[in-house]
Amino acid sequence: MKRDAQPQAGGGLRTDFVGWLKGIAGASPARAALLIFAFAIAVFTSLLMLPWATSSGRSASLPEALFVATSAVSVTGLTPVNTADHWSLAGQIIIIVAIQLGGLGILTVASVLAASVSRSLGVRTKLVAQEGWKTDQLGEVASLIRIVIIISLAIEAALAAVLVPRLIAIEGDVLTGLWHGVFYAISAFNNAGFVIHSDGLAGIGYDPISVWTIMIGVFLGSLGFPVLYVLWRFRWHFRSWNIHAKLTVEVTTLLMVAGAAIYAFMEWNNNATIGDMPMWEKLQSSLFASVNMRSGGFSVVTSNEENSTTMLISDALMFAGGGSVSTAGGIKVTTIAVIWLAFLAEARGHKESVAHARTIPSSTVRVAVSVVAMGATMVLLSTLALMSISGLDMERPLYESISAFGTVGLTSGLTSELPPSGLYILAALMFAGRVGIISFAAALTVRQRSTRYRYPEGRPILG
Amino acid sequence: MKRDAQPQAGGGLRTDFVGWLKGIAGASPARAALLIFAFAIAVFTSLLMLPWATSSGRSASLPEALFVATSAVSVTGLTPVNTADHWSLAGQIIIIVAIQLGGLGILTVASVLAASVSRSLGVRTKLVAQEGWKTDQLGEVASLIRIVIIISLAIEAALAAVLVPRLIAIEGDVLTGLWHGVFYAISAFNNAGFVIHSDGLAGIGYDPISVWTIMIGVFLGSLGFPVLYVLWRFRWHFRSWNIHAKLTVEVTTLLMVAGAAIYAFMEWNNNATIGDMPMWEKLQSSLFASVNMRSGGFSVVTSNEENSTTMLISDALMFAGGGSVSTAGGIKVTTIAVIWLAFLAEARGHKESVAHARTIPSSTVRVAVSVVAMGATMVLLSTLALMSISGLDMERPLYESISAFGTVGLTSGLTSELPPSGLYILAALMFAGRVGIISFAAALTVRQRSTRYRYPEGRPILG
Ligand SMILES: [K+]
Ligand SMILES: [K+]
Repeated sequence: MKRDAQPQAGGGLRTDFVGWLKGIAGASPARAALLIFAFAIAVFTSLLMLPWATSSGRSASLPEALFVATSAVSVTGLTPVNTADHWSLAGQIIIIVAIQLGGLGILTVASVLAASVSRSLGVRTKLVAQEGWKTDQLGEVASLIRIVIIISLAIEAALAAVLVPRLIAIEGDVLTGLWHGVFYAISAFNNAGFVIHSDGLAGIGYDPISVWTIMIGVFLGSLGFPVLYVLWRFRWHFRSWNIHAKLTVEVTTLLMVAGAAIYAFMEWNNNATIGDMPMWEKLQSSLFASVNMRSGGFSVVTSNEENSTTMLISDALMFAGGGSVSTAGGIKVTTIAVIWLAFLAEARGHKESVAHARTIPSSTVRVAVSVVAMGATMVLLSTLALMSISGLDMERPLYESISAFGTVGLTSGLTSELPPSGLYILAALMFAGRVGIISFAAALTVRQRSTRYRYPEGRPILG
Repeated sequence: MKRDAQPQAGGGLRTDFVGWLKGIAGASPARAALLIFAFAIAVFTSLLMLPWATSSGRSASLPEALFVATSAVSVTGLTPVNTADHWSLAGQIIIIVAIQLGGLGILTVASVLAASVSRSLGVRTKLVAQEGWKTDQLGEVASLIRIVIIISLAIEAALAAVLVPRLIAIEGDVLTGLWHGVFYAISAFNNAGFVIHSDGLAGIGYDPISVWTIMIGVFLGSLGFPVLYVLWRFRWHFRSWNIHAKLTVEVTTLLMVAGAAIYAFMEWNNNATIGDMPMWEKLQSSLFASVNMRSGGFSVVTSNEENSTTMLISDALMFAGGGSVSTAGGIKVTTIAVIWLAFLAEARGHKESVAHARTIPSSTVRVAVSVVAMGATMVLLSTLALMSISGLDMERPLYESISAFGTVGLTSGLTSELPPSGLYILAALMFAGRVGIISFAAALTVRQRSTRYRYPEGRPILG
């Protein structure tokens, strides 16, 4: 229908699809994103319910298949069943395809949304050109999508090039090593957190090269496409970066270092996690945990054996998440930056938030507040529901809800214990945390318009 | 020193004091508030450490005395010891005097702050005159303080007039009834939550008139002085109210009704709380719990026997708190209103937050965000510290931290189990939640000034 409304010159399936995507994204970007992802989840749920997708040959149940499909497409990594044991090779291939398409889908849809939002705002020049995405190079949605796909596949190929030889050596079998290497490369860059060793990553956790490769993959994926593009174009010339890249890299680095330090401090003597590792492995595992808490979802230790204090710190980092237009979830590091800058401006008595010689518009602060308020409300409601369903006190339901909302995939073990009603709640949260937040923020930004008249100011007393 | 800088005509101890207060409040309102309260806490700590303050005749320990003095002056109501058993009549009189002075202190200091803030902002006309406090009547700080004291004492006297006869009947002794009636009248209006029955309010919970009188006292105290003043002047002519009073009453009513409904729904069949009460008492107790969760701190049931879900809802309501310039704590209902209005404006695509034909300035949104961020950070740090100290998981440390920060006084039982280090943390949180938030918000508002030049806009991508 949209194709009728916006006929494309040229034809050809690819151009048609791109034109159609461009059409609906331009018309209602938020709705388009929601529909595309719901459709993808339905398709992968159906595939996972085929008998040959499971290792037992019995069809997976609807809640199981729907949950895993949602988890894969939203690149979360939570799963009620053990990915290595429950699914056949075919099932695992379905999952990694869902992850790859989900990850690329998020990056492309979010890129298109960001571009279409900026067009509707009349600040296309600002966001797309001045702020790093050159109009002359990426003006067309099709080129934008092509660049996203090229960067993603290039990074995944580089990760696989390191992982495959290591895993061939570890597994002692060429085909298994190849398959595992490719799986982990895709799972890492897409921040998916799915593992196909039945004992999780503990089995390869002793190999620093594998651990660091996965960690670097997760880190790059969590930075987000606009930052990767800036890095690709400007390398380490920090001054040439746009405000988005500067803020993203700064907050990401701060959270990563602080998270690793706090994790090491809290778990140093916990023998159920890193307590009996040698010093270098304690530090490496702490950094790995910190990087993955903000969305990767891989773990070399069992999360529910961490201290309660560590789980609370994880809650905060999982909620924070990664960069915008990335495979990471959460409220995003730029949202945190905007709120922190607003706070700083207030504390210093400045009228406007300023960072790196740029004024952050006050409308941006309101979008940030709205995103946090929506996220906190969804997590609170889900936590309450899971507490009712499970009869547990808040610690594990909260952890699992934030992990789902932030599409992190770390688990307190609750997901594998929940009845279908609980799985549906978490699946809804993964969906909302993945597509909801992006389209919500885009919808808010795109709909900003001037009011016709202005009321006199009314200043309620706060605090 | 300040008196030298701003010599007062007239003289007389009262005028001198008022002039001095006016002077330092005008110069640095935030610091003045902090100093006054720290001084008051030091005095009452010393008094409570006198041997004749305890029923045993042995001096209370420093952490105990400091904690109870802070709790009384900040009108919180948390206590590591049973007020009825641990303290002598003299000790209880010290406590109720601390509550009365603390409550009046908060109301007067916050009123003066609000007035001085509006003067420094150059919007004195707006806040003090247009928005309800007529300059011609309350222009002078001295009259402002007088009105605060008159309204407070008048309401307390009305509450005592109902409570004293009831408690004489219940206790069967005129002097005891008189003392208890006056104590509960002061404790209720000041949202202090201290009780002098060793079994808490359960002993008089069967008497609806006492329960409703205390509930109404808590409710009036939590509305805050600017709203009480508007109610006194304009009664129920809602259209004549200012924006502050409208928003406060609306959010308060919403939270009260929703809180009672949720409480009733969650605890209906919990026999440890309201489960075996008759229907009318279940509803009355739910309303009582809802009103007191937002700061009163009285309870007719034992909080730590509530469901975990109820405790989580309580966490949210305790954090929210009551009205500004009131004896209630928390981030304040107008802060919630401002954030909700910002969210609504975003969702509707309006450029500005509007309520009741008034534009909420965007600087107000930033103050609100800063207050929430500061509160959330303090609660998180305190929760982590208490989890480390107690070895518990997050539920009870979080509950106790929010109760202290929101100066609510409801307890999960943790306060009476903590070692001195934990008591100092909670005492610091009560102090910060009481004076910190008020002076923080005032300091933020007062320091707002224009920047000399404006950077170009930089719009990071969110969500
Ligand atoms: K993930
Ligand atoms: K209280």
